[in-house]
Formats: sequence, C-alpha cells, structure tokens
Amino acid sequence: MPNSTEPINEDAFLLSESELLAQLQGLIERSEFESVERILAGREPAERTRILSRISRREKRELLTHIGFEDAADLLHEMPELQAVKLLDGIEPSQAAHILEELPKDEQADLVGELPAASMNAILAEMPKSDASKVRSLVDYDDEVAGGIMIVEFLAFRELDSVGVVIEYMRNHVDELSDFSVQYVYVVSAENKLLGVLRLRDLLLSPTHTQISKIMIAEPVSVTATTSLESLHAFFTEHSFIGLPVVDSNDALVGVLRRGDVEEAMAEHFADDFRKTQGIVSEEIRTMPLMLRSRRRLAWLSINILLNIAAASVIAFYQETLSQVIALAVFLPIISDMSGCSGNQAVAVSMRELSLGLVNPNEVLRVWLKEISVGAINGFALGILIAGVAYLWIGNPWLGGVVGVAMMINTVIAVSLGGTLPLVMRWLKLDPALASGPILTTVTDMCGFFLVLGAATMFLEYLI
Amino acid sequence: MPNSTEPINEDAFLLSESELLAQLQGLIERSEFESVERILAGREPAERTRILSRISRREKRELLTHIGFEDAADLLHEMPELQAVKLLDGIEPSQAAHILEELPKDEQADLVGELPAASMNAILAEMPKSDASKVRSLVDYDDEVAGGIMIVEFLAFRELDSVGVVIEYMRNHVDELSDFSVQYVYVVSAENKLLGVLRLRDLLLSPTHTQISKIMIAEPVSVTATTSLESLHAFFTEHSFIGLPVVDSNDALVGVLRRGDVEEAMAEHFADDFRKTQGIVSEEIRTMPLMLRSRRRLAWLSINILLNIAAASVIAFYQETLSQVIALAVFLPIISDMSGCSGNQAVAVSMRELSLGLVNPNEVLRVWLKEISVGAINGFALGILIAGVAYLWIGNPWLGGVVGVAMMINTVIAVSLGGTLPLVMRWLKLDPALASGPILTTVTDMCGFFLVLGAATMFLEYLI
Repeated sequence: MPNSTEPINEDAFLLSESELLAQLQGLIERSEFESVERILAGREPAERTRILSRISRREKRELLTHIGFEDAADLLHEMPELQAVKLLDGIEPSQAAHILEELPKDEQADLVGELPAASMNAILAEMPKSDASKVRSLVDYDDEVAGGIMIVEFLAFRELDSVGVVIEYMRNHVDELSDFSVQYVYVVSAENKLLGVLRLRDLLLSPTHTQISKIMIAEPVSVTATTSLESLHAFFTEHSFIGLPVVDSNDALVGVLRRGDVEEAMAEHFADDFRKTQGIVSEEIRTMPLMLRSRRRLAWLSINILLNIAAASVIAFYQETLSQVIALAVFLPIISDMSGCSGNQAVAVSMRELSLGLVNPNEVLRVWLKEISVGAINGFALGILIAGVAYLWIGNPWLGGVVGVAMMINTVIAVSLGGTLPLVMRWLKLDPALASGPILTTVTDMCGFFLVLGAATMFLEYLI
Repeated sequence: MPNSTEPINEDAFLLSESELLAQLQGLIERSEFESVERILAGREPAERTRILSRISRREKRELLTHIGFEDAADLLHEMPELQAVKLLDGIEPSQAAHILEELPKDEQADLVGELPAASMNAILAEMPKSDASKVRSLVDYDDEVAGGIMIVEFLAFRELDSVGVVIEYMRNHVDELSDFSVQYVYVVSAENKLLGVLRLRDLLLSPTHTQISKIMIAEPVSVTATTSLESLHAFFTEHSFIGLPVVDSNDALVGVLRRGDVEEAMAEHFADDFRKTQGIVSEEIRTMPLMLRSRRRLAWLSINILLNIAAASVIAFYQETLSQVIALAVFLPIISDMSGCSGNQAVAVSMRELSLGLVNPNEVLRVWLKEISVGAINGFALGILIAGVAYLWIGNPWLGGVVGVAMMINTVIAVSLGGTLPLVMRWLKLDPALASGPILTTVTDMCGFFLVLGAATMFLEYLI
C-alpha cells in the first residue's frame, strides 16, 4: 500500500476497477479524503458513478461529509437519485442543507421531495428562509408538469430599467451567473407579472440608455406551471426556443423551462414506460439491497402469477376434452404467447401515437377499426401457418382447423385490446404503459384457451 | 359550404376534427390554399399534426407545393419523419430542394438520408454546391453519434478578430442569426482547427477592440463526430454546458451539439428500445398503408411463432407423460409466462444500468451473480406458491413438488439469461433491446417445459 498521496494518483490509472475500488475503500478507511477526491477527479464520469455506486453507504457518507460542499454536491448530482436520497437522509441536516445549497433549486427539490417528511423539514429548516420556501414550492409539483421541470435560477428586471442597468448587474455578478443558463433575461412588472423577454443579442446591440421595455419581445409565449410534459414536448418540437418562461395562475413569473430539461424529462418518461411494461416500477439498480430488489420484483410477479392461475383455470375446466386430445396441450402455450406478442405490438404503436399526439384518447373507435384490419390479416396468416403445422404434426385436419381458427380470432381480440387499452388508460388518467402487462395477457390467455378448448369440445368426435 | 374565406376561418374553431378534415379536403380540392393555411395556423400543433396525418398523400402534396417554401418546411418539420420523406419523394426535386433549404442542415440530412439514392441525388443537385456537400457529409453519420445529432449552423471567427468585428457581424446578420441558436461563438485557426469558445456574456462585457483570443476559453472541451449518443448523454448529465463543439479527426470544427438535441435523441432511443422489445422495429403509425403495417408486424410474429413451435415441441416429446397426468397441462402456460416475466424484469434492469453507465458490458459475471440471488429468492417464493396451488387444486403433493421445483429452477435460469443477455448483446455490438424478445422467451419456455415434464416422467408413478 502506498503511503504518500503522490504515487497513488499515478498508480490509479493502471489499476483495474476492482483494485481501484479496494484502494479507495482503504483511503476512506484511513480518512485520506483528499487522495480519494484526486483519484475520482481523474476518472471518466461514467466510471466515477460506477465506482461510487459500489462502495458501501457508510463509505459514501464518510466521503460526502469530509469533502467540500461543492464537491459533495457534484457527487450527489452524479449518483442515481435513489442513492443520493438515501445518503442525504443519513447525514446531519445542517450539513445536508449546505451541500444541497450548491445545487440548483429544482434539483434540491427533486432530492428533498423524496425524503421522509421529517427529514425534509429538518433540512429545509437549516436553509435561509427564502430558499427553503422556494424549494418547498417546487416539491409540490408533479415530476411531469412544467413546475416540476423548470429551473428557478433566472434573471428578471423591471420594465423601466435600462440596458445599462442590466449589463451593469451582469458585470457585477459574473461568477454567480456562470452557474445560471442565461440565454434570456425576463422583464416583469412590480407585481412580478411577466411582461417581456430580452435576448442577450439585443442587449448586446443596443445603446446602454435604452429602456429595456423598448427592446424586449412583448407578450412572450409562456406556459403555466401545471402544463403537462407531453404538451411541453410538443411545444419544443414545434418551436426552436431554447427556453420558455413559466407563470403561475396570476401570470407571475415563477421559473424557466430549458429545452434540454424538457427533453431529458421526456427521455426519463420513455425509459420509465419501458421498465413499467416489464414490471420494474421502481428505480432498481443492482447495488440496492438484495431483499429490497427481490421484494419489489416479487410484488409484480405475485399479481401476475395469480392472474396466470386464473387464466389457466380455463384449461382445468376443459381437462376432460384435453385428456382425450392431448395434442392440444402443445398448442395452448403457442396461442397464449403469440396473442401476447400481437397485443403488445398494438400497445407499442398506440403509445407512440399518443406521445406524438397523433391520436386523441377519445378516438378508441378509430384505433379499434384500424387495428382489426391488421389483426384480421395477421391472424389469418398466423392461423393458416399454425393450422398447417398442426395438421402435418398430428395428422388430423379438424385439429388444424380448431387451432387455426382459434389463433385467428384470438389475434383479432389481442390487437383490439392492445390498441385500445392505452387510450382507455389515458382517458381514465392512468398510465398507458401499464396496459400492456397483466391485463392484456390475462384476457388474451383466457380467450385463447377458451377458443381452442371450447371449439375442441364442440368438435370432439372429429378430433379423437 | 361557405364560399368566402372569412367565415371559414371563424367556423373552423367550432367544428369537430372530422368536419374540419372534410372542410380542409374540400378547400384543397378547390385549390384555396390560403384558407387552408389560415385554418391550420389557428390550431394547436398536435392537432395540426393529427389532421395532416389524416389527409391523403396526394392532398398533402398539393398543399405542400402550393404554399410558401418556409410554410411548407414548417409542415414537413411537424410531420412524422416517414410521412415527410414519402412526401418529398413525390414532388419535383427543385421544389423539394427549395423547401428543404428552409430547414436546418441536420434536418435536411435526416430527411434526404431516408430517400432512395436517386431521389436524394436529384434533390441535392438542385441545391447550391456548398450546401449540398454539407448535407451529404451529414447523411453519412449514424443517427446515434455526435455527427448525426449536431447542427452545422454556428458562428466561428478567426483568433485575430476583435470583439468589435464579431459584434458588427452579428449586428449585420440579426435576421439570419435569429434562426441559429447562438449561445457560443467559436474561435478557429486558419485551418479551421478549434481554438476556443467565446461566451456571449463575455462579448457583452468586453471593450470592442479586444482581440477575441484574449477573452475566449482556450482549449475548450470538444467531442469527435463519432462519439456515441450514450457518451454524449453522460457528458451532458455531468456538465451543465448547453452546447458542445464537434470536431473531425483533424480537430477541425464541424458542428455544434446542443443539450436539447442530445436529450431528444436519447428520448427517441428509449422509445425505440420500448418498441423493439414489442416487435415494432419500424416507425409504424396507423395512417400508413394497411398491408405495409401488417407485413412489418408479421415479419416479427413469424419468427416468433416458429420459435414458439420449437419450444412447444418439448411438450410433444413428453406427450406420453402428459396424457397420463393431464393436470400438468394447466401449469405449462403458467411456467412459460412467469419465466418470461422474471427474465424481462432482469432485462429492463440491465438495460437501465447499461444506459446509466453503471455497468460495463464485460461485467457479465458480476451481473449474473447479482441476478441469481434475486432469482433464487423469487423463484423460491413463486415455486412455493405454485406448488401450494397445485397441491390444493389437484390433491397430489408430488405434483405440487414437480411444478414448484421446476418454477424455482426456471426462474433462476430466466433471470440469469435476462440479466446477462443485454450485456452480451452490447458486447457483440448488437442492440440490447432485442435481447428481451424471442431469444429469452424461447429458451426459458424450452427449459420450463423440459423441467416440468422431465421431472414428471421421472416421478410418474407418484403422480398418477
């Protein structure tokens, strides 16, 4: 083990990740936090996040509380949110408050909003009152509306101010502003009502005595804090603005939306959708405690297995038929799986059309009519295929017919349900991404088993 | 039908979408394009996109070729890409070139890149040579690297230029620049090598005679045009920059990446992943021709049904056992479906960890060890549950044991495969999103059927 800090830093680049990890843990153990910081600073961001996610929570806490507030804030910012929240919850509220204050208010709100109420209040109590109340107001917004995505670091001036005043202010606050994203400067009335937007470029090109209300873009486009993420996404797709002022119900300026943040929220939204359809509703990562991960996944699996058992009871009901035509057992899982596939394709298309705004949630009938045509064609093709396979395999044309017709009808049912469920979910204000999972599969399984075994029971004499 | 344009415009807001659609089609038929434009301008962007996606391609073409180039470009921009491409392919190359020239070069490249080579060349031939070659160079980049996401509209000046020269240029090009996103101004050498970045704010605060090389940020962070989307995303998560210069292999400045565009590409990437796991590999929307939609979905379903048949052949192989213990048929679809669910959960977690950079593609062993623990716990829980159900339902403890143990083992197999497949796919430079589909399900189905029926054959005497 090296005992001066210099060689450590040089070695670090030659070490494998696991050796590096052991070394960092040793350094934390021996409270050599400066060396830890130096080593981490030299790694790629992704690697740094990876390494940090693998040291224990106690070690992370040690590190966080023994480096500068700004560096600590940077570490928090780079971690997955859930880890950062757990970590904050474990340190002194006053220390947590100091670290948080190095982050933009919207990120502060994202983090404290996930804490237990008592911890949140303890931390906010350690902040200057005005900051705390600003963060608190942000916590209340949903993650997927303008208020939950906007930043509250922006520049606003009164309408009677001159270009000179604005430039003077910026000149005197260069350091502070470098943390802002100052693309626009806003103009507000004495009651903080939004009056206009100044572009930096216009400030640059105007004489200093000009009153800013003369060069501002008056009545600028703005959105209210409750505007939904999807509307915001549509707005930024339509317009090339890079920022958009957000007002409250009294038209007072409360924040600024940056294009990048809206797109980032949309990316998170899509990624969420994907995980939800796979039954990963939470933000699982593999450094979380084993039992927590198991329990969360199991919650969803348990619902699913009960629904599966319900669907399979259709098979039990027709056990008599099945025992006489055992070949049918080969085709039940095929029908079940294929209907799920066809249905999920329709779900994916509906979710895309919803998010692009190409379809309204009340257009269930329109989507259904479009889907049954695709379902009929694909059901016909798959039905013929499976009928052929069944006939060749088992040698009974009636069995081919029963299985093929069941596949056709069930494909139409699956795409009808899959196409329309996301719209119905949206219309009921539920999450469309949850549609493709258990509901769809259970219904199509039941229908599929019923169609195959019901028809087989009817034509039993020809099947034996 | 109204026959003056004034009342149309007022009526339009009271009409339902389908009435509006009929009215617009009538107006296009009668070549009253100005009225069409006026009506469309009054609708929300999402509604406009929806309406446009529902008029025929011929009507869209009529509209596009009879309104101003800039308005036509706006329409193209708002449409789903596939529709825009089809439309461009159907109009005169010179007209297409004029319309395209109203869009940023990167969007031009996105659209012409999707055209058949002959159409692309015909359109580019109608553009000024330097523009055409710029677009052509963009077409060659993959959608998911810096070169495919960057914009090429940016301001660059030589190092010896003064602040005054830059401001003078901007003053004289205000109109043109308003279409740019001018957050930074770049400083380059005579060979176009990137030397520095100027912030507008610094330009604003410096005397006009200052040489820009004095106030630029020297040796700015930059990326090469081939940097992957995921690295870019990690970079923008780590840094608060809103733009990032892109250089080629000779360090020459070739474009600028905006934070918003990177996030947008990432959102599209996640949405794509989601669709791919559902077998919607293409950009399907429901206004596409029926046969095309059917064919595309069927391509994936056909592969799936063949794999399904392969898996089901395991059942056929054990038909003898099954016919003696018909109750097993009830549990086969349950085991198949539950293994798919468990496996897909592991896929979702791996894909998230890959995209957050929390795991390296070569850490297959690490992920596998983490997954088997979750698999063992959940498999145990699900196995006990299904064994209990089987026992209570059928009344035979041996049958409960066979089904329960098969469920346990198969859950471990499913999560092992599901957790590691995305890493292996990435390592093989294939798309991890494709992992969760057919491969996973087929293998887990086969294993599940084999475990249940194999064990049942071994213990047959206790099951009858």
